[in-house]
Amino acid sequence: MRIFEQLESEVRGYVRSFPAIFDTAKGSFLYDDQGNKYIDFFAGAGTLNYGHNNPAFNRALIEYLERDGIVHGLDKATVAKKNFLQKFYDTILAPRNLEYKVQFTGPTGTNAVETALKLARMVKRRSTVISFTNGYHGLTMGSLAVTGNNFYRDEFFGVRSNTAFMPYDGYFGKDVNTIDYLRRFLTDGSSGVDLPAAFIVETVQGEGGVNVASDEWLQGLEALSRELDILLIIDDIQVGNGRTGTFFSFERAGIKPDMVTLSKSVGGGLPLALLLMRPDLDQWKPGEHTGTFRGNNLAFVAATEALAYWENDDLSEAVRYKGAIMKEELDRIAAKFPDLESEVRGVGMVWGLELPRTGFAGELSKECFENGMVIETAGADDQVLKFLPALTIEEETLREGFGIIEKAIDTLLTRKQALRSGAVR
Amino acid sequence: MRIFEQLESEVRGYVRSFPAIFDTAKGSFLYDDQGNKYIDFFAGAGTLNYGHNNPAFNRALIEYLERDGIVHGLDKATVAKKNFLQKFYDTILAPRNLEYKVQFTGPTGTNAVETALKLARMVKRRSTVISFTNGYHGLTMGSLAVTGNNFYRDEFFGVRSNTAFMPYDGYFGKDVNTIDYLRRFLTDGSSGVDLPAAFIVETVQGEGGVNVASDEWLQGLEALSRELDILLIIDDIQVGNGRTGTFFSFERAGIKPDMVTLSKSVGGGLPLALLLMRPDLDQWKPGEHTGTFRGNNLAFVAATEALAYWENDDLSEAVRYKGAIMKEELDRIAAKFPDLESEVRGVGMVWGLELPRTGFAGELSKECFENGMVIETAGADDQVLKFLPALTIEEETLREGFGIIEKAIDTLLTRKQALRSGAVR
Amino acid sequence: MRIFEQLESEVRGYVRSFPAIFDTAKGSFLYDDQGNKYIDFFAGAGTLNYGHNNPAFNRALIEYLERDGIVHGLDKATVAKKNFLQKFYDTILAPRNLEYKVQFTGPTGTNAVETALKLARMVKRRSTVISFTNGYHGLTMGSLAVTGNNFYRDEFFGVRSNTAFMPYDGYFGKDVNTIDYLRRFLTDGSSGVDLPAAFIVETVQGEGGVNVASDEWLQGLEALSRELDILLIIDDIQVGNGRTGTFFSFERAGIKPDMVTLSKSVGGGLPLALLLMRPDLDQWKPGEHTGTFRGNNLAFVAATEALAYWENDDLSEAVRYKGAIMKEELDRIAAKFPDLESEVRGVGMVWGLELPRTGFAGELSKECFENGMVIETAGADDQVLKFLPALTIEEETLREGFGIIEKAIDTLLTRKQALRSGAVR
Amino acid sequence: MRIFEQLESEVRGYVRSFPAIFDTAKGSFLYDDQGNKYIDFFAGAGTLNYGHNNPAFNRALIEYLERDGIVHGLDKATVAKKNFLQKFYDTILAPRNLEYKVQFTGPTGTNAVETALKLARMVKRRSTVISFTNGYHGLTMGSLAVTGNNFYRDEFFGVRSNTAFMPYDGYFGKDVNTIDYLRRFLTDGSSGVDLPAAFIVETVQGEGGVNVASDEWLQGLEALSRELDILLIIDDIQVGNGRTGTFFSFERAGIKPDMVTLSKSVGGGLPLALLLMRPDLDQWKPGEHTGTFRGNNLAFVAATEALAYWENDDLSEAVRYKGAIMKEELDRIAAKFPDLESEVRGVGMVWGLELPRTGFAGELSKECFENGMVIETAGADDQVLKFLPALTIEEETLREGFGIIEKAIDTLLTRKQALRSGAVR
Repeated sequence: MRIFEQLESEVRGYVRSFPAIFDTAKGSFLYDDQGNKYIDFFAGAGTLNYGHNNPAFNRALIEYLERDGIVHGLDKATVAKKNFLQKFYDTILAPRNLEYKVQFTGPTGTNAVETALKLARMVKRRSTVISFTNGYHGLTMGSLAVTGNNFYRDEFFGVRSNTAFMPYDGYFGKDVNTIDYLRRFLTDGSSGVDLPAAFIVETVQGEGGVNVASDEWLQGLEALSRELDILLIIDDIQVGNGRTGTFFSFERAGIKPDMVTLSKSVGGGLPLALLLMRPDLDQWKPGEHTGTFRGNNLAFVAATEALAYWENDDLSEAVRYKGAIMKEELDRIAAKFPDLESEVRGVGMVWGLELPRTGFAGELSKECFENGMVIETAGADDQVLKFLPALTIEEETLREGFGIIEKAIDTLLTRKQALRSGAVR
Repeated sequence: MRIFEQLESEVRGYVRSFPAIFDTAKGSFLYDDQGNKYIDFFAGAGTLNYGHNNPAFNRALIEYLERDGIVHGLDKATVAKKNFLQKFYDTILAPRNLEYKVQFTGPTGTNAVETALKLARMVKRRSTVISFTNGYHGLTMGSLAVTGNNFYRDEFFGVRSNTAFMPYDGYFGKDVNTIDYLRRFLTDGSSGVDLPAAFIVETVQGEGGVNVASDEWLQGLEALSRELDILLIIDDIQVGNGRTGTFFSFERAGIKPDMVTLSKSVGGGLPLALLLMRPDLDQWKPGEHTGTFRGNNLAFVAATEALAYWENDDLSEAVRYKGAIMKEELDRIAAKFPDLESEVRGVGMVWGLELPRTGFAGELSKECFENGMVIETAGADDQVLKFLPALTIEEETLREGFGIIEKAIDTLLTRKQALRSGAVR
Repeated sequence: MRIFEQLESEVRGYVRSFPAIFDTAKGSFLYDDQGNKYIDFFAGAGTLNYGHNNPAFNRALIEYLERDGIVHGLDKATVAKKNFLQKFYDTILAPRNLEYKVQFTGPTGTNAVETALKLARMVKRRSTVISFTNGYHGLTMGSLAVTGNNFYRDEFFGVRSNTAFMPYDGYFGKDVNTIDYLRRFLTDGSSGVDLPAAFIVETVQGEGGVNVASDEWLQGLEALSRELDILLIIDDIQVGNGRTGTFFSFERAGIKPDMVTLSKSVGGGLPLALLLMRPDLDQWKPGEHTGTFRGNNLAFVAATEALAYWENDDLSEAVRYKGAIMKEELDRIAAKFPDLESEVRGVGMVWGLELPRTGFAGELSKECFENGMVIETAGADDQVLKFLPALTIEEETLREGFGIIEKAIDTLLTRKQALRSGAVR
Repeated sequence: MRIFEQLESEVRGYVRSFPAIFDTAKGSFLYDDQGNKYIDFFAGAGTLNYGHNNPAFNRALIEYLERDGIVHGLDKATVAKKNFLQKFYDTILAPRNLEYKVQFTGPTGTNAVETALKLARMVKRRSTVISFTNGYHGLTMGSLAVTGNNFYRDEFFGVRSNTAFMPYDGYFGKDVNTIDYLRRFLTDGSSGVDLPAAFIVETVQGEGGVNVASDEWLQGLEALSRELDILLIIDDIQVGNGRTGTFFSFERAGIKPDMVTLSKSVGGGLPLALLLMRPDLDQWKPGEHTGTFRGNNLAFVAATEALAYWENDDLSEAVRYKGAIMKEELDRIAAKFPDLESEVRGVGMVWGLELPRTGFAGELSKECFENGMVIETAGADDQVLKFLPALTIEEETLREGFGIIEKAIDTLLTRKQALRSGAVR
């Protein structure tokens, strides 16, 4: 580990939570350089919906490299890109009657977000954008401006211009319809909040603590955006690509956003990011938003393979089946340890266990790691244990994972009890 | 091509300049799906210093994939990352007595720039940053704020806060020392320009039109930065990685920047970006700047192979040798066509031929493409033909390329002459 | 009127509502150059709490001019300023146990607001400020940033940096405690709203439509500001100086703001503006905020005379007495014309009659003017008739004014009825 | 003085330089409460061009107050305003063939500047404005953004959005034409400086240290503004109103600005500020920029009297005559004390004596004050003694003032010499 401590910036994070040197990975398992094996309930924060080193993807990548398929091509046309576009149209857009144009942005989510915000402002001739409490959209300056968590900001970074944060679904409790709040602000010319170019929102806030917007709320937001001529941008970077059971996470609510950002799993584990936009919004001049790696051909190869999962409903059904197991296991665990006052939230295969005790979720993640499992926390205070296994995880492994969790909670509580008793003596 | 026109955003650029569907690539050659072959004098805008599909890199990538080496790991420690760090230290940092810490940012240049600017502002507790005329540092909002070309900006994108642009070397002609100009502004408390956290500058402005800062100018800038306690950030994304003959482009001036951004060729053609920083500047809190693909293990594998080129001086000498050929060929061409009033500029293996006639550089690029060569334009008005071949190009191919250029100029001039004569008749 | 139309900017406003050329004024009466007399229910938007050309003030001004008392002195010490400061201390600060320091800013309200915001940000080292829906604090850029009404803004004016608007008391109806909303945003590190340097708020929103914050709401805001270490700035420009019955409008709620802005009536009708601040907040360097007319000695002379009104409780009692008449008259009028669905709001001697019918308040103001009375509208849609007579108005004139209102409503309704009947025929 | 120290903010400035309590004033003399008399070479920083308590103005003010002329009227039409507008047209605009419309802004210079900048940005649909090194335009946020001196700024005040500072005439020495620099930046689409809505500039920088732009430079700036369709705003607040010999300071260069800001002396010592604009730029909606004291009728009365000075050329000739005396006296003094290495700069009746020795100008101002004279310093480092007597000063008083200066220099130098000698012993 010394080389990391010596040379790598203090900014490194997960290496501290999961202090091993990982070497290989396959499906839902990670292996470190000591031969230890770990179940992965984190899936690269949603990048590995199809599992680590998916055999089909790796095979295609190896073949592509062996035949010297072009790897780097900026935004030149390539056979690999053509294949991806065609398959994306055939398996994703056409069956859903979605008429989007596709922009390949720099190969990471924040770049897709920056692109969406720039385009929205340019097209609507308005500089204001509305984001939501606990939203996470990335950390470059344009994206950071719409990211809620103040841990990531500094007074000296410069201004977060013309961004207003509005309450997400449930922010004031279940009984308050925050769409009404939003409407009041936006229809009152004296509210101080200007008519925005766009709303940018996640249907499930992953980093924000697995907060699930209801279908009604999403529909209300879409209706408001139509009524007031505001663009609706769904940031589907973390919970798109099948995470909630459908390819796009917004399908459950039956809405049609004006723009969609995609990244993480779309490249099958390799860096790729896309912006989808209504054709009439595609008002870019050639070259107006560029980037060196906006055509990552290796990622196109893996991504095209990944789309094969969407040729039929098998994956969606698997997500439904395994999602039900996750809910059931979490409800069971929550019920077994009532003192934790935990709350279970989620949809599809993204679930959160909110643990109000300060620091408990973090300790749990640590205890799990020591028992051969990688699982992360989320939420403003890292108070939520986030369950994000690969969609392709085997049922057995999934159940094994929950077994580790349960045991870890038990261990922690027993240890705390012992400490407390000890303190009395 | 129809699928690109139908589905891909109007923002696509190079596909318009080079209208072919590329399939494979090797070294300095590209091949399209019709079997046509093209000499590459563009090298992915500096991403392919080691050539397309470098055999050593591809071999290592295939082996890594075959043994299920972990591909996606966020910023967890991995064997691939460890190998890269160790090799980077051994071949690059240690021999140059450079004590930098390394941050892996999102895998594209603009993310490294955003990270550098955020860190500089945070550490120095000042929000102002100084950039230079014709500078290009990327297009996400933080980077765009320090990019000069107004083609990329829109009034509605939001504010470019606290950025001042100062004249680059030679901006007012050869006789004006623009460091004096800069010093005057920065030492006068009433100039309106606040003391900045940092200067961000390229030693050779690639996108800006191959403008080469002199050693003296760079030394003057470093001296000023020391004198006034301003951080010096060298953006070495396009001209680092050996492009000017040394690994870092600033080595020729004998300066030691406080931060360096690296991307493009550092990943051997795969998406990777680094920020190097003086250890005392590494004041990040864990996780304060993150990104999904900041650990792109496939890129680490290729990048580690690429570093082998720096175990001895062979590549540097090759750059010197072939750079001299490039200068000689360009001088010869410039002399042969005096009516073009062209100017030759460059260093190492990055050269520009400024062609003041409106649109001529663009026509030339097009004519070259029709004759089997990919070469791009640069500069505020696309008035510069930019020569950026792989550093590994064979001498024969290099000379062949210049032959194509020469012939293309001749063709264009003859055609124009014919048109003019025709117009007279 | 021709000279005004020819030479004065289109921005002129009240001259359009009240198209007469006024010549003289006394107490609650205005006289135009044709000898017409008007009752003044507008009082210079709160500048003439002590009436037009108050005899005591005018006498003092004349004496001062006759003895060549210094008129313009920047911020030099003068006898006139000394007298004002002493009297302000003796009659206002000391009896209320308020330990404020006084800053004389540029002689208009917006300058006092700009000064308060600059100081708050400087002292707290935070750039964010929170303002409230329907707040009005002025139109220079710093003040405009905290003014809610978008009529006053333009996309090109530049950024309203780091300002968030929160719901004023009653913004979501009577049953919603908006302090809870505010607390939720400010205590959640992931809400997207940074901890602000200050709240800036009016206890009664005059321009915003005579919205009266309850004592409980103001106390809640003060408590929240203490709890979270946020400065509380009361903008008392329009409703300070006795308008609500006490010298400061916040006295009714028993709160002690950290800063208070005063202007309008404080100079007895002459341009003067003050910032009051807790002594420990007075961290200015000498000369750090200046302005040519920050010492308007003529205004000091009138202002000192004005303070004589606060040597005893007579004025406060008069406001209570006449305020009760105003409420009673308005309630009576509202009840008499139930079809108007009007709402009566107010406190002390600032009252609003909200008239939801589009344009009705404006027509009423016009009709009143034709019947010898000056009265203005307020609110985001100019839907509120605002009653702001001089505090010194005679009871008879006050009642006469309400008579004009009542008759004007009757006239308008009858006319509309006639039109409607006519339309039927 | 105790009441000032106890109650007035630490921000107070001139009271520290001139520690007396002034009571009365007349013409070019100030009198304190101890009966001491001071010659005024400061003239309220340019507010008292017509002297203190000008008898004609005071007489008119007293008459107006005695007949209860309306004092406060917002922007309602009044007889006083009408008289001013007519006289301004007859004596100032018509004779100079200037077709400006007049906007009465809040009654202080910074408000006129804010108004000009808002209007320029709104009309040109561009947010950038260009200001110049050492420019001073006020301290509210919009004006502060174009004010050069960083003493007045704080990182937390918020952003100075879209403002670029360019070198004023002579900023790089006499041989460098800074208009060329400006043109280079503005005609290069890749300079990083966007095409601005406006230039804002003083023809003589008063606060900046009495820097006089040459006629050629001002003509070059006007030509550039026409060529590039940029509005030219002359900020004539300090050196307009006859200070340079003509009513507007730009008349000497024969240019016609698109907008002009006026304040200080225009109100004859009372708070008043105006924006003049080309009629086609007057695109305000009624009430879009307002302010409580934008119609200060007392100031109109004095201002109308002041315009009588412009019915003939007497004042202009007096300025020429006395300006020549000032130059002569300063040249003589500079020659007499060569060790000071002083520089004399100025035009009309605004002159500066630059004294490079650190702190010397300040000591000199202090010494003069002790000898019965009020004179201030200017410049980024307060290194310039600024001579700004009333235009109406008697020749005898003027010469007397220079006598005091001369003697004060002599005293200071002798004292320093003595100290130095003493140190040797």
